[in-house]
Amino acid sequence: MRVGYFQFDPVFGEVKRNLDVVSERLAHVECDLLVLPELFNTGYQFVSREEAVSLGEDIPGGATTARLLELAAARRMHVVAGLAERVGNAVYNSAALIGPSGLIGVYRKTHLFAEETLWFTPGDTGFPVYDIGPARIGLMICFDWFYPESARTLALKGADIIAHPSNLVLPHCPDAMVTRCLENRVFAVTCNRIGSEERAGKKRLTYIGNSEVVNPAGNILRRAAGNQVDLSVVEIDPSEAREKRITPFNDLLAARRPEHYSS
Amino acid sequence: MRVGYFQFDPVFGEVKRNLDVVSERLAHVECDLLVLPELFNTGYQFVSREEAVSLGEDIPGGATTARLLELAAARRMHVVAGLAERVGNAVYNSAALIGPSGLIGVYRKTHLFAEETLWFTPGDTGFPVYDIGPARIGLMICFDWFYPESARTLALKGADIIAHPSNLVLPHCPDAMVTRCLENRVFAVTCNRIGSEERAGKKRLTYIGNSEVVNPAGNILRRAAGNQVDLSVVEIDPSEAREKRITPFNDLLAARRPEHYSS
Repeated sequence: MRVGYFQFDPVFGEVKRNLDVVSERLAHVECDLLVLPELFNTGYQFVSREEAVSLGEDIPGGATTARLLELAAARRMHVVAGLAERVGNAVYNSAALIGPSGLIGVYRKTHLFAEETLWFTPGDTGFPVYDIGPARIGLMICFDWFYPESARTLALKGADIIAHPSNLVLPHCPDAMVTRCLENRVFAVTCNRIGSEERAGKKRLTYIGNSEVVNPAGNILRRAAGNQVDLSVVEIDPSEAREKRITPFNDLLAARRPEHYSS
Repeated sequence: MRVGYFQFDPVFGEVKRNLDVVSERLAHVECDLLVLPELFNTGYQFVSREEAVSLGEDIPGGATTARLLELAAARRMHVVAGLAERVGNAVYNSAALIGPSGLIGVYRKTHLFAEETLWFTPGDTGFPVYDIGPARIGLMICFDWFYPESARTLALKGADIIAHPSNLVLPHCPDAMVTRCLENRVFAVTCNRIGSEERAGKKRLTYIGNSEVVNPAGNILRRAAGNQVDLSVVEIDPSEAREKRITPFNDLLAARRPEHYSS
């Protein structure tokens, strides 16, 4: 199975430009599961809730999903993309999983970071896992990585691969995803963005790139540079994520002892 | 507050020698909380349950605890030490927290690794936290690090500092403890051993050293080499662990969303 990421530099508010970049760069990709950044179509640094409402789109009714549906059908691939999802007057920081035959599911970010709490409604979907045939795909978004419960929940629900659209500005996540993959024996595809944003009256945010694919043994199969556009595809065997024995005496999930855990 | 570790090379079965090494090297240490390795008095690589029973000791009645009580009283410090605890015919892989005035508590390892499952009884204490005055100390042992629930449970119970006696042979834990400290905003003192063991009929085990002190911001304040005896003490401010705001909009533990977590 081929999994990959497209790390690039969305421009704030220029939805058509951002969609064009994605369509053009992915026009010939050979991939089974391709992950795009969080809020890949709008950019990240919103400055008001009105702006989030205005740039938010229906899924699957909006223009962004329409373009992704075309792309997924044309390339016979699955795409996981982060975008602002408008539902009435609420806006979620969401990720859509789109296959060659249509929309498969939507995840709404559970753990909102910093000012996102001002623009977005906390996600109400929980952490979903979708069986797409060659693997079961779990969804989480950016700062969800900080809470080990996110990846753990996906693993307990059977995820083989965590698709993880991100807009990372702090340095810790790429190494932490090694721990997330080890402790759950799953693959992860983290797609971060690059570049920077500086909206009126706001502090400049610079994104760290370093998108990556990590395997269940905690090996980094591919990691992008911090500041370069990077379309990477890696061949993996998702069945590695179904072997949860970590020693002949330890089955990772069966050896959990929830009676001793606080929740 | 001064916290530290004594990383050394216990010799299997030579309990008196191992206790002498500790007593001599710590005879003049100035420290408030000193962590020793897992099974520091016996060594790690047991080859039978009988051997574990024979080397197991009562806590606090056994010879090892007696020596640690002397040391803690003489140096006016707290010690966390890993040792095999015998209770009737059961043996636990335990850690004792000993203060200047006596035994404070015992933790019995929750997640046994590999052949430990053959010699030891799974811990029945859960993850305890003890208030020693300048800080609240949480206990976990070695492979417990692999399960994020261990450190999370300690943080939810109010731990400021995780004392983590270890006998690590795989490379991942030292970097993973950075994630454990970040995701819980706690300090951790991991004390690993060095050297190697090769018991009759068993594969040689080589321990990776790299004992460390990590702070709630995920900074490694001190990390030992992989193969050198190392007594290190670091000054910390445990109140840093009580500030759980990670942005002005995010309180780490309050922002958890257990209704969306599988357990």
